[in-house]
Amino acid sequence: MYTTDTIIALSTPPGSGAIGVVRLSGTEAISLVNEVFTGKDLSVQQSHTLHFGLIKDGGVVIDEVVVGLYIAPKSYTKENVVEISCHGSNYIIQQLINLLIKKGARAAKPGEFTLRAFLNGAFDLSQAEAVADLIASDSRASHDVAMQQMRGGFSNELKGLREQLIHFASMIELELDFAEEDVEFANRGELRNLITRLLSHISLLISSFEVGNVLKNGVPIVIAGKPNVGKSTLLNALLNEERAIVSDIAGTTRDTIEDELNINGIIFRFIDTAGIRESADIIEAKGVERTLERMKQAKLIIYMADAAQSPAELTQQLADLEKLGIPYLALVNKADLLTAGQRQAFASHDVLFLSAKEKIGVEELKTSLLEKVNLHHINTSETLVSNIRHVEALKNTETALHKVLDNIDNPVTSDFLAMDIKQALHYLGEITGTVTTDDLLENIFSKFCIGK
Amino acid sequence: MYTTDTIIALSTPPGSGAIGVVRLSGTEAISLVNEVFTGKDLSVQQSHTLHFGLIKDGGVVIDEVVVGLYIAPKSYTKENVVEISCHGSNYIIQQLINLLIKKGARAAKPGEFTLRAFLNGAFDLSQAEAVADLIASDSRASHDVAMQQMRGGFSNELKGLREQLIHFASMIELELDFAEEDVEFANRGELRNLITRLLSHISLLISSFEVGNVLKNGVPIVIAGKPNVGKSTLLNALLNEERAIVSDIAGTTRDTIEDELNINGIIFRFIDTAGIRESADIIEAKGVERTLERMKQAKLIIYMADAAQSPAELTQQLADLEKLGIPYLALVNKADLLTAGQRQAFASHDVLFLSAKEKIGVEELKTSLLEKVNLHHINTSETLVSNIRHVEALKNTETALHKVLDNIDNPVTSDFLAMDIKQALHYLGEITGTVTTDDLLENIFSKFCIGK
Repeated sequence: MYTTDTIIALSTPPGSGAIGVVRLSGTEAISLVNEVFTGKDLSVQQSHTLHFGLIKDGGVVIDEVVVGLYIAPKSYTKENVVEISCHGSNYIIQQLINLLIKKGARAAKPGEFTLRAFLNGAFDLSQAEAVADLIASDSRASHDVAMQQMRGGFSNELKGLREQLIHFASMIELELDFAEEDVEFANRGELRNLITRLLSHISLLISSFEVGNVLKNGVPIVIAGKPNVGKSTLLNALLNEERAIVSDIAGTTRDTIEDELNINGIIFRFIDTAGIRESADIIEAKGVERTLERMKQAKLIIYMADAAQSPAELTQQLADLEKLGIPYLALVNKADLLTAGQRQAFASHDVLFLSAKEKIGVEELKTSLLEKVNLHHINTSETLVSNIRHVEALKNTETALHKVLDNIDNPVTSDFLAMDIKQALHYLGEITGTVTTDDLLENIFSKFCIGK
Repeated sequence: MYTTDTIIALSTPPGSGAIGVVRLSGTEAISLVNEVFTGKDLSVQQSHTLHFGLIKDGGVVIDEVVVGLYIAPKSYTKENVVEISCHGSNYIIQQLINLLIKKGARAAKPGEFTLRAFLNGAFDLSQAEAVADLIASDSRASHDVAMQQMRGGFSNELKGLREQLIHFASMIELELDFAEEDVEFANRGELRNLITRLLSHISLLISSFEVGNVLKNGVPIVIAGKPNVGKSTLLNALLNEERAIVSDIAGTTRDTIEDELNINGIIFRFIDTAGIRESADIIEAKGVERTLERMKQAKLIIYMADAAQSPAELTQQLADLEKLGIPYLALVNKADLLTAGQRQAFASHDVLFLSAKEKIGVEELKTSLLEKVNLHHINTSETLVSNIRHVEALKNTETALHKVLDNIDNPVTSDFLAMDIKQALHYLGEITGTVTTDDLLENIFSKFCIGK
């Protein structure tokens, strides 16, 4: 899988801006750039230095740039790395990359810089994965979870677990060498204690995923309700801006519009949906279909009714909703139009009254959201597993360790015990990348952005 | 206007990516970053060096970063400059900037880095403006025009013109000192020749704007026609992708969708518009209004008819279009459904036959577009004025120089002549920024992106 050819990619987000950074890594990174750079001879410069000059394609000036040099192994990838800061024009960036590809560089695959860093031992696999999470982080919670993982918190915990297991594995291997003498170097009582402790630790890690996952990805919330009850207006009120087109025509919202709200450092992803109703309009019909799909992915549904609806109708709607099995929060909108008596009629339903248009009750709704999804008191300095791949590996480890326990209680020969312990070590090793396959790496790094 | 306080901004495009670069400039740039950077003491490092470390807010790690140092005056702004390369997460960038603002930096205004570079004499005003054009450049043509201007091509030409005028201005000033002796140090014949040469040069520059402007901004083209003749399909065929939602329902396109096509290095901006028809639907009615607005801004209108329409109807439509006074190109779409005889009936109109859906005739259309807007043979190494402010200043210079000519022909006292020459010098100086006002600078740099 590992090659040392020179790869190139835009490392800053696409789009025009003051600066764009094009990154190269590989044996020839410096010499390739040197061919098109006027200013200094880059091949005789020191590592960690910056150089101003022109990038020229023959006689044509592509840009005035600053070139940053990192000489192997003192770089992110541990290879020679060059970062070219150019003017942030798409055209310039494209020309620059094309020119260096013409000179012999190759367009980097997604995550290929980080893959090389991992393969060259700069960090382990779960740390590499945290780099992608860190880039995607958009809130205090998701940042802290990713940073903890990237800085090695999770890795160290796994390393601790592995080391204890490895100690016993080697003892049992030793027993195999002396198989004919029937000795026990590994104390079965101690092993049992260790496995039990590991299992409870791993179980905690696995159960941390539910929180880790929503902290990382945000809490998906669907705003549902009949057409024209004010769903888009509520979204606007929550986001405090005119995000969705709001008009008086029922069925205006045709696309599911997604927007995010940060409440106490946690991201709530609000998914506004096409009103649920039968529609002869094919564009809108597609929207309704999508609404049901979206609702099933939500962690919570905000179901919105209109003050003008009858409480009996709301009862029916909530009963329908309950069949989906997803937690919901019922709202009665346009509540400023209700008398106290009319409110009373809704009261049996545990609803929140608000007026999205007048922005009455919106703050109360935010508080209810935090409570409803049970995320008031989160300690992000603890290890929270936030990666589905890690959870899978932990579950596999758990299964293997349970087998070890069974085998201690129902004594088997040392070689069976050794096999199950090795299996557990294998699954733990998958997380940190001690054990990898090309497919696994391909799968992980293909989800990275290009340029990282 | 000029201050040396330390400014900060994200210099790469917003959005998540592998790397984000936050830039600081000002007296305290290095010392401020040093307060939150762990790794090395930045205050004792050399200019043009890179340093790896952590940015911490108290105990909280915000990110692992690389810091690039530029010590005044060896920087873009000629002040101390620090560039922090962090992980390209919006959250991290926001935290990083907030932290440094808390430490004493100030959020930079749009273009403030480049403004400082100009005020510190790194380049003249027309070159500063070219920086923004270069960033916005999205084609060979717009890149070459901006690069030529940024590298000083236009500035040198203006400098040449100014120097010749200044020579005569100083001669005439001398005459004023000896006013009582009635001598002529400045030869009126030579002055007349010079002014005539300058005028013809300036007139060339002014007339280059028509080309310079479309090379810079793209050629705006409106695709118009009755609903459902296939305008969105044509746009998709031209762009070779599914850009607009295409459906069989007349009036699907509600927003004007803008997209760009690069033909021979020149950008054509295609503006797809809501079908022109009377509509009871308020959303669509807004679209139709916007269509007419857009048509008036176009350099060319592609008027699209349907093969099923009668040639007589097309005649009427083209007659209506002619009233707008904008060049147009008539297309008959779905032409694959026409017999040769039916084609004949349209032939009196100089129409192009095509089938957008079948992608027949699309390449021919591209060729016709280049011809119709008269941009086959452009030499971008010549100076092309592409900035409306420069054209205004050149026109003012022209007026002042014409006055000088009049005053040579109808002799006036030297002081009048001197005044008009000074006026011409003033307008030329506005372009390069020899003459500026705070309002002018504010106006120019407010159009820059933040971080440049």
